[in-house]
Amino acid sequence: MGNDQLIEGVFSGNPRSIARAISLVESNAPGSAEMMKAIYARTGKAFVIGITGSPGAGKSSLVDKLAIFYRDQGEKVGILCVDPSSPFSGGAILGDRIRMSALGVDKNVFIRSMATRGNLGGLARATVDAVAILDAAGYEKIIVETVGVGQDEVEIVKTADASVVVLVPGMGDDIQAIKAGIMEIGDIFVINKADRDGVLRTQKELEALLSLAHRPDLWNPPIVKTVATENKGIEELAAAIAQYAAFISDRPESSQDRRISIARWRITELFRERLLREALAEDSTGEKLENLAREVAEKRRDPYSAVDELVKNTEK
Amino acid sequence: MGNDQLIEGVFSGNPRSIARAISLVESNAPGSAEMMKAIYARTGKAFVIGITGSPGAGKSSLVDKLAIFYRDQGEKVGILCVDPSSPFSGGAILGDRIRMSALGVDKNVFIRSMATRGNLGGLARATVDAVAILDAAGYEKIIVETVGVGQDEVEIVKTADASVVVLVPGMGDDIQAIKAGIMEIGDIFVINKADRDGVLRTQKELEALLSLAHRPDLWNPPIVKTVATENKGIEELAAAIAQYAAFISDRPESSQDRRISIARWRITELFRERLLREALAEDSTGEKLENLAREVAEKRRDPYSAVDELVKNTEK
Repeated sequence: MGNDQLIEGVFSGNPRSIARAISLVESNAPGSAEMMKAIYARTGKAFVIGITGSPGAGKSSLVDKLAIFYRDQGEKVGILCVDPSSPFSGGAILGDRIRMSALGVDKNVFIRSMATRGNLGGLARATVDAVAILDAAGYEKIIVETVGVGQDEVEIVKTADASVVVLVPGMGDDIQAIKAGIMEIGDIFVINKADRDGVLRTQKELEALLSLAHRPDLWNPPIVKTVATENKGIEELAAAIAQYAAFISDRPESSQDRRISIARWRITELFRERLLREALAEDSTGEKLENLAREVAEKRRDPYSAVDELVKNTEK
Repeated sequence: MGNDQLIEGVFSGNPRSIARAISLVESNAPGSAEMMKAIYARTGKAFVIGITGSPGAGKSSLVDKLAIFYRDQGEKVGILCVDPSSPFSGGAILGDRIRMSALGVDKNVFIRSMATRGNLGGLARATVDAVAILDAAGYEKIIVETVGVGQDEVEIVKTADASVVVLVPGMGDDIQAIKAGIMEIGDIFVINKADRDGVLRTQKELEALLSLAHRPDLWNPPIVKTVATENKGIEELAAAIAQYAAFISDRPESSQDRRISIARWRITELFRERLLREALAEDSTGEKLENLAREVAEKRRDPYSAVDELVKNTEK
């Protein structure tokens, strides 16, 4: 399939073309940069929802139910699930198949796990590109679900139009650590599994922390209680998201700095990948890297002087 | 303080010098690469333990108790806590102060949170460098605790000599997703909070998953049950770690491929940072980046053609 044909397929919403285009950006394939230029020209219509929180918070169920809610309202919904996986061996993804069966085969719901493909991958960059592909393909709501709460995931969630942070009652003694990382990215907070003990305590703690934070845009992040597995609170969550969407669309200037930060980060990420790719594209560099990796592994050399060697090699 | 004096301070185990050296690698300060070359020459004696698992699993308590166990045996222990924090604003770290007070001021225990410092940070690289600093400073056990289960954290944990994955009973419906990411990195599994309901079920699930995995090195990862807050199972955990340490030291060849993979990843990360830093060091590139970020934020340009512009600028 040629690139033009693939791009046309994406624009017409063909799921196979979309899947293929996402695979190209995931593997940073030759031609993917050119493809993305064409695709970016058609973006800007979708509303992107980032959903994060700790493992065990029930994010998958919540995302699935929210997707079904939007679909039932006649919208096309894309779901991208960002899975931390091994940087060395490629890692396996279980999620897709399990969840596809739950959501059913539905042409208005596209679901895909994003994985890294080795050192050159750039998971965050690939995910943001996949969002653009779904946007250009006519998906109206795009939900980006991140499994972890690592740096990459935080970066990804921050590029969403609305960020939802999912907690569960009784997170225990790590709650301070979690909150430190995610408090500032949440536009909406969800306490899922709200039929469990400790909801009130979690809510009070969260309210206390939220009262300390002051957002430059003066948005007051709401707390929504859900029991995703029983479909409870999903409508309220959708309403909170809609409210936030209205809030930001009334005040484009308030998010200007944030959008510039995101753009700077994205350009820098792409630039970094490009520089590395070009440097490693030279045959001699690839071979040099292998030899240096062996020397460092055997402690015959430190990684910093190995890089000096690579730089010397590139500059020749 | 000059670089030589700082390096001497690290070698003599001065905590202030160690802290300063770690700050230099965190901020990727000028001179830090030279410093690290000197430091790497003195590494290789420490045993590095990576501890990961989901937020709420009680990792902090477990790490603290394990550190106290080693300290009481007369060893010097370094703890590095990797905190996901905002890539845009720097993020705040609560952990250190809270935990310092718990562990007390003890010259044989060094504790430090690692945070990112903007786009150029390289959290994984900085953490691995901090491990080397503690190693060169004479810490015998270095525990790297990661809060998240993101890609960066997985990368960091994989560079440890032994990786401990912490679970808690009743993780709920995301357990598949967690396990997919962490199963392959765990040398030892801990079920913490083992006084809670559901221990047996979690253990059975874990055993089932472990029986499916087959490690090339034929190590059979043990499952240790702990109640870290009550200091239960800590000795058993230390014994399991010691057993694994003996296992790998008897079979250096079995981990050769893994060590080369790690070395390749580390060199590539450093090389990528170096290329970006050198490219952005040119005044005109920094200014260009700001303008391009604005254009992308305002959707007047796509990020890929912005990078083309940057590359053109660098090549001039």
